[in-house]
Amino acid sequence: MLKVTVEDIRDAALRIKAHVHQTPVMRSERLNQLAACQLFFKCEHLQKCGAFKARGAHNAVLQLSEQQLACGVATHSSGNHGAALALAASRVGATAYIVIPENAPTVKADAVAAYGGQISYCTPTLEAREQSVAKIVDKTGAVLIPPYDSAEIIAGQGTTVLEFLEQIGSQLDVLITPVGGGGLLAGSAIAGRAECPGLQVIGAEPSGADDAFRSFQSGIWQAQTNPDTLCDGLRASTGQLNHQVIQAMVDDIIRVDDADTVAAMRLIWTRMKQLVEPSAAVALAAVLKHPERFSGLRVGIILSGGNVDLDALPW
Amino acid sequence: MLKVTVEDIRDAALRIKAHVHQTPVMRSERLNQLAACQLFFKCEHLQKCGAFKARGAHNAVLQLSEQQLACGVATHSSGNHGAALALAASRVGATAYIVIPENAPTVKADAVAAYGGQISYCTPTLEAREQSVAKIVDKTGAVLIPPYDSAEIIAGQGTTVLEFLEQIGSQLDVLITPVGGGGLLAGSAIAGRAECPGLQVIGAEPSGADDAFRSFQSGIWQAQTNPDTLCDGLRASTGQLNHQVIQAMVDDIIRVDDADTVAAMRLIWTRMKQLVEPSAAVALAAVLKHPERFSGLRVGIILSGGNVDLDALPW
Repeated sequence: MLKVTVEDIRDAALRIKAHVHQTPVMRSERLNQLAACQLFFKCEHLQKCGAFKARGAHNAVLQLSEQQLACGVATHSSGNHGAALALAASRVGATAYIVIPENAPTVKADAVAAYGGQISYCTPTLEAREQSVAKIVDKTGAVLIPPYDSAEIIAGQGTTVLEFLEQIGSQLDVLITPVGGGGLLAGSAIAGRAECPGLQVIGAEPSGADDAFRSFQSGIWQAQTNPDTLCDGLRASTGQLNHQVIQAMVDDIIRVDDADTVAAMRLIWTRMKQLVEPSAAVALAAVLKHPERFSGLRVGIILSGGNVDLDALPW
Repeated sequence: MLKVTVEDIRDAALRIKAHVHQTPVMRSERLNQLAACQLFFKCEHLQKCGAFKARGAHNAVLQLSEQQLACGVATHSSGNHGAALALAASRVGATAYIVIPENAPTVKADAVAAYGGQISYCTPTLEAREQSVAKIVDKTGAVLIPPYDSAEIIAGQGTTVLEFLEQIGSQLDVLITPVGGGGLLAGSAIAGRAECPGLQVIGAEPSGADDAFRSFQSGIWQAQTNPDTLCDGLRASTGQLNHQVIQAMVDDIIRVDDADTVAAMRLIWTRMKQLVEPSAAVALAAVLKHPERFSGLRVGIILSGGNVDLDALPW
């Protein structure tokens, strides 16, 4: 069992504080009316690199020795983690080697390049991604910083919820986060349960990439093969370590169809004027799909990222 | 000469305080780098109704007597003022009659309807707009609340800048606002000059609807006929009263081509993750087009509105 405690998350928060934004919490009267509950949106789309991933990447990189940093860091990522790692590495003068699947959105590869990351492309399978990174690590001695399945990443992502609860005085009944690799959900569950007794922690996942749901229901980790969702940040298999945390500490996983996610994304754009990516809209979609379940409650939602390809919008 | 003083604007701020949002000020390191100056964005796209227009409309409506309110209020508007007036009227239980030109964006008419405004459509000329409203006023006794050319509206819009300067400690070298009808620019100039000595106040206007520029250059009010710009909020002729304030108190009007406005809008979307409408992006476009002029300065920009038709984006 992976040992990440709320103390690790507190340490991470101190470690990364000077390097990441304290993102605002937003409210929307119109969306509260629509959802018949009190919504609190934690705006990680306004985070450095436009996603919560900046937290975990900084937490991992800032714990490396000078000797390690001299060889650089490496990862595979369809986008936000890659950009976040490139940024974190640039902060400490290290090289970041980022393997990107060929089908990743251009906007996300562009962000990696903008932060000075060294990009290699691979075929879009987990196997190819891992092999490509392994080759780079062999050749350069770079430290592999996995996108989600590691204690440092989980602790870093968990700082989102520590900060969120502090901002609103720990007054939430439910916390909902998107779940892809599971780093955000695992970190959120650890922080949320420690800081806010009685808090329900729920993951929202695309129906077309529902491995976290299947793993959670069966209790046995299951891989995601052939994901079919426009939520490009949520296509990966949940990490096996993250699965263990989720199994132990999360109350439920709710599946959401892409059509509902797109409708929720459009509501966030038009009502809140906030540009979030599809993956960030699954949590609101889950609330709107199950009004009876959340009616009257104080519901925290993490808007996980805002990196959208404006030339390929889903409407 | 229209007499609006900073005292009127202070009174307006108190009057409308409970009814409008104190909108946040946002920064963007990446845009600062790009513009080579310090940018401060006043987020009126996060205002009620998604535009600063909520300020002027509330300031006007909240000064009406019960007898006046019983007959309702009326205006013509291509969008944001109409929605704002419908909202302000609904707050005090009055009927709002809104005349909308047939070519106005659907999203703006929908907003008027959502706030309970009674819509009539007219052909999209100033003459037709004014005639249609006059007919309604004749028939109902409703009070005409003009979209920009009135002391109450100017004072209301000016509260934006009072609040902006208070939020950032009056430390601006330049303030740039979009100019269409001119209510925001006039109110901003009055508030800005009173609160921040030495402040340059500049209007940004689409090249395809440059009547404020021509009026300012010649010193003589000129109408806008056949506007040709995608900035649907900036097509109207500047009000004649507003022109007088602008002539007396504004430092310059900068014209911006639509292509530059669209590029600036896209930057605000992708870098700041803020959904602003084209009319709101002209001020940043003006800064990016004239880097030598603003280099190193502290530049305040009003993001005036965020009501965009997502099915008709300009790219």
